[in-house]
Amino acid sequence: MQFRLIVEYDGTDYCGWQIQPNGRSVQATLESALGRLLGHATRVAAAGRTDAGVHAAGQVACFQTHRTLAPATVLRALNALTPEDVAIRSVDVVGDGFDPRRAARSRAYVYRIWNHPTPSPFRRRYAWHVPLPLAFDAMAAAAALLVGEHDFSSFRAAGCEAEHAVRRVRRSEMGRDGALVEYRIEATAFVRHMVRNIVGTLVDVGRGRRDPGGVRALLDARDRTQAGITAPAHGLCLVEVKYE
Amino acid sequence: MQFRLIVEYDGTDYCGWQIQPNGRSVQATLESALGRLLGHATRVAAAGRTDAGVHAAGQVACFQTHRTLAPATVLRALNALTPEDVAIRSVDVVGDGFDPRRAARSRAYVYRIWNHPTPSPFRRRYAWHVPLPLAFDAMAAAAALLVGEHDFSSFRAAGCEAEHAVRRVRRSEMGRDGALVEYRIEATAFVRHMVRNIVGTLVDVGRGRRDPGGVRALLDARDRTQAGITAPAHGLCLVEVKYE
Repeated sequence: MQFRLIVEYDGTDYCGWQIQPNGRSVQATLESALGRLLGHATRVAAAGRTDAGVHAAGQVACFQTHRTLAPATVLRALNALTPEDVAIRSVDVVGDGFDPRRAARSRAYVYRIWNHPTPSPFRRRYAWHVPLPLAFDAMAAAAALLVGEHDFSSFRAAGCEAEHAVRRVRRSEMGRDGALVEYRIEATAFVRHMVRNIVGTLVDVGRGRRDPGGVRALLDARDRTQAGITAPAHGLCLVEVKYE
Repeated sequence: MQFRLIVEYDGTDYCGWQIQPNGRSVQATLESALGRLLGHATRVAAAGRTDAGVHAAGQVACFQTHRTLAPATVLRALNALTPEDVAIRSVDVVGDGFDPRRAARSRAYVYRIWNHPTPSPFRRRYAWHVPLPLAFDAMAAAAALLVGEHDFSSFRAAGCEAEHAVRRVRRSEMGRDGALVEYRIEATAFVRHMVRNIVGTLVDVGRGRRDPGGVRALLDARDRTQAGITAPAHGLCLVEVKYE
């Protein structure tokens, strides 16, 4: 049978989701815990391969086993076997043909910015510290222009292996709570470093170095060198994966 | 001249505020940064000596120097010289006779509980994980009974050096935001482990192992053995120190 997990992790001390020859990956951590629970090796497939340092509150991951186990047992046992920076939030059973990556209708990410003159020890692992003031309304206006189907070549990292950069963005919004500024984006799929490259550009807008409307020309340019820097990984969190 | 700092720190990797022979203390960390900034040694005095693993969002600390420096310079330079788990939020100048501990009118602490069946990687450093359900209203009723002047001997750790345990509690309230339960207490002063011992007792109430009203009898008993366990340090945060 195939189980589906919703996984939360603090990505700080991981080389990312995917197994790497010389790194501590979330995938290997889960596979090792599952090996102990099941008594046999199994592969874990995820909806999204998060990069090094990126967090997840709602990663979806699946594994197969010939053993018959209750989801509640898997939940309890796995949480006892994983390190404290990885937790399973829920477990259910899905059909054997279910592929968490292909079946996903959309993915939602949140990028957090701590916009305050002084750093915050409590936020440092989960938010990018931008000490200079950001023009929130300008950022919100620029963010809204990304909704819809666009070619995101200008926001695509070198080495991205996707065939093309056309993606459909369902939601692209700024929010804030005091000094904590949050950017939320939901799309069918993403090209490599897309969210972090968008955030680097939105921060340029917030600093007054770009016009909010310039984002449209940037999309048209399809040229990575014209967009902003890649925002650091630790502000990014995969918050939700949606299915039919 | 004497400077007053408001300090935020993640207490996870500290032996507490106070300098210890074999530990990394917040006090020594600040004194070392100040030594580099000022070019001379100086002592840092705090409003409250937090224990190992306890956090602070609003610790108040003072130091003296014969050098003339602008508060904004001290703020910027100190934040550049401290590790990222300690930050200075603001700096001002106070009279030479000002003692941050004696002058404090009250101190406020928040204790956070992650009350959810599964652990949370993001909360694990800042909240006590209590997986079984807690009766919030019963806890709130018990918490309210602590307001006023009482003898807190039942909530006082062995080794507390205070002359007596009578303290005036101005505020004692439960709050929540989803699975995050927060206890806030404000008092003129505290006996050793008072907040953590109160929280251990409130969790007993939330689990149905004590009546909310039993807290009154507990105060009257003046007997530490009758109260609950000492809640773990990492849920506790010194949030504010108030002055005239």
